[in-house]
Amino acid sequence: MILDVAFSRLDPACRSASGRAVAVIDVIRATTTITMALHHGCAGVIPVRTLSEAMALARRLDGGALLAGERNAEKAKGCELGNSPTEYGRPRIKDKMIVLTTTNGTRTFQAVTEAQAIIACSFLNVTAAARWLTNTGLDILIVCAGRQGRFCLEDVVGSGILIDRLLSISDRAYMLSDSARTARQLFATYQNDLLGMLRDCEWGKEIIRKGFEADLEICAHVDLTDIVPVMREGRLVAERP
Amino acid sequence: MILDVAFSRLDPACRSASGRAVAVIDVIRATTTITMALHHGCAGVIPVRTLSEAMALARRLDGGALLAGERNAEKAKGCELGNSPTEYGRPRIKDKMIVLTTTNGTRTFQAVTEAQAIIACSFLNVTAAARWLTNTGLDILIVCAGRQGRFCLEDVVGSGILIDRLLSISDRAYMLSDSARTARQLFATYQNDLLGMLRDCEWGKEIIRKGFEADLEICAHVDLTDIVPVMREGRLVAERP
Repeated sequence: MILDVAFSRLDPACRSASGRAVAVIDVIRATTTITMALHHGCAGVIPVRTLSEAMALARRLDGGALLAGERNAEKAKGCELGNSPTEYGRPRIKDKMIVLTTTNGTRTFQAVTEAQAIIACSFLNVTAAARWLTNTGLDILIVCAGRQGRFCLEDVVGSGILIDRLLSISDRAYMLSDSARTARQLFATYQNDLLGMLRDCEWGKEIIRKGFEADLEICAHVDLTDIVPVMREGRLVAERP
Repeated sequence: MILDVAFSRLDPACRSASGRAVAVIDVIRATTTITMALHHGCAGVIPVRTLSEAMALARRLDGGALLAGERNAEKAKGCELGNSPTEYGRPRIKDKMIVLTTTNGTRTFQAVTEAQAIIACSFLNVTAAARWLTNTGLDILIVCAGRQGRFCLEDVVGSGILIDRLLSISDRAYMLSDSARTARQLFATYQNDLLGMLRDCEWGKEIIRKGFEADLEICAHVDLTDIVPVMREGRLVAERP
C-alpha cells in the first residue's frame, strides 16, 4: 500500500490521485472549519474555487445556502460567513447547505478530482479520518493545501498525525514516500506542542496579526469529533467511519 | 535576513530568487559531482537543460569540452561522462571544461537565473558554501533539485545542514521560512547517519538498484573540500570563501 503526501495543491504528486483515497488538509483553516460545520450539523459544504462561482451556486441551490468566503484570511465581501470555525456555531448552520470558497483550502479539492474517494481532514477529526481511509482499502494520498503552492508547516504536521494514526490503526504494510516520512517526522517533533507550532508557523503568525488567534486553539484540538467530511457528488457530507 | 528553501525547481519559492544568493542542492548527485569535478581541477562546469544543447555547446567551445550527461541515473547516450562522481577523477578532467546535463540538477540552475549569485552546494562543500553565502550579505534561497518537481528527502537534509552551518557561522538574525525550519529539523533527525539516510530515501534506493551504491558514500562525505562552484557567466567555476 502506498502512503504519499503532496505538500501543496501544485505538487506534482497530486497527479497520482487517480484510484486513491485522498485526504485534503488545510489546518489553518478550511478543513478545520469544514469539519466543525459538519460536526455542528450543517447539511453539507460545497467547496468552490471562486467567489463569483460561490455566489451563483448559492443563489441556484434549492432551499438556498449560506455563502461563505475567505480571501487573505478575512471574510470575503458579500459573504455571510468567513473561514473562522468560530462562526460555524450550531444555531447558525444547522441543516443548512454551505457554499465555501477560500484562497487555498477549497481549491485543493479541485486538484484531486480524479481520486477514488476524497475527505477533509484536520486535527479535529484525524483519528476518524484515519479509520475512514483505512476502511477504503485504497492507496492513500494526503494533500496539504499549502499556501499559493508553497509548503506550510502546519499542514505537513497535520499529515504527520494522520500518518501516525493510519500506522497505529492498520496492520497493512504501507510504503511511505520521502514526503510521508518527513510529515511523520515533523509530527513527532511538534506533537507535544501543536498549539505552539500553530502560533509559530508562517501562516499562524499572519492569522494572529489579523486578529484570529482564538481560531488557532480550535485548530489545535485533536479528535474533537468522529465526523469525516466525505465528498459525495461535489458536496462534503458528514459520515462516521 | 531571509533564509528560505524551495523543495524543488518547480516550487513557487523559486520566483523569489531575484536579488538573493541561491544555493542549488542536488545531493544525489549533480551538485556532488560538480563539486567533485571542480575539486579535482576541472576548468568549469556548464549546466545545460537538454542533451542536444549540451552536444552543440561542447562542439562550439574553443579548445573543446567534455560532454557529460545523465538520464534516469544512467550515462546518457553519446556522452563521455555520466553523473557519477567516481567518473570525475583528476587525470580525466584536470583543466577541462565540462558541459553537463542531468534530469533534475542542472535544470534547477535555470529556475533561478534571476538570482544575484548562484552556487552549487552538496555535503562535500557545505561549510565552505555557508561561508561563501554569508560573505555575500544577501538574503538566501536554497533550492533543492528534487525529482520532477517532487520533494526529495536527501536534498532537504542537505539544505538543513547548510542552514545549520549558516546559523553557526553568521551572527545575523535570519528569518527562517516554514520550509527552512523543516529542513533544519530534518538535518537534526538524520545528522548521525547521513549515509543511512541516503541509502534509505526514495532516490537513493533507485540509485542502488541501478548499481551506483558506491556513489552514495561519496555523496555523504561532509566537508571534503572548501571549493565552492560559483556561477560566473553561465559557468560554475571554483572559488574559495
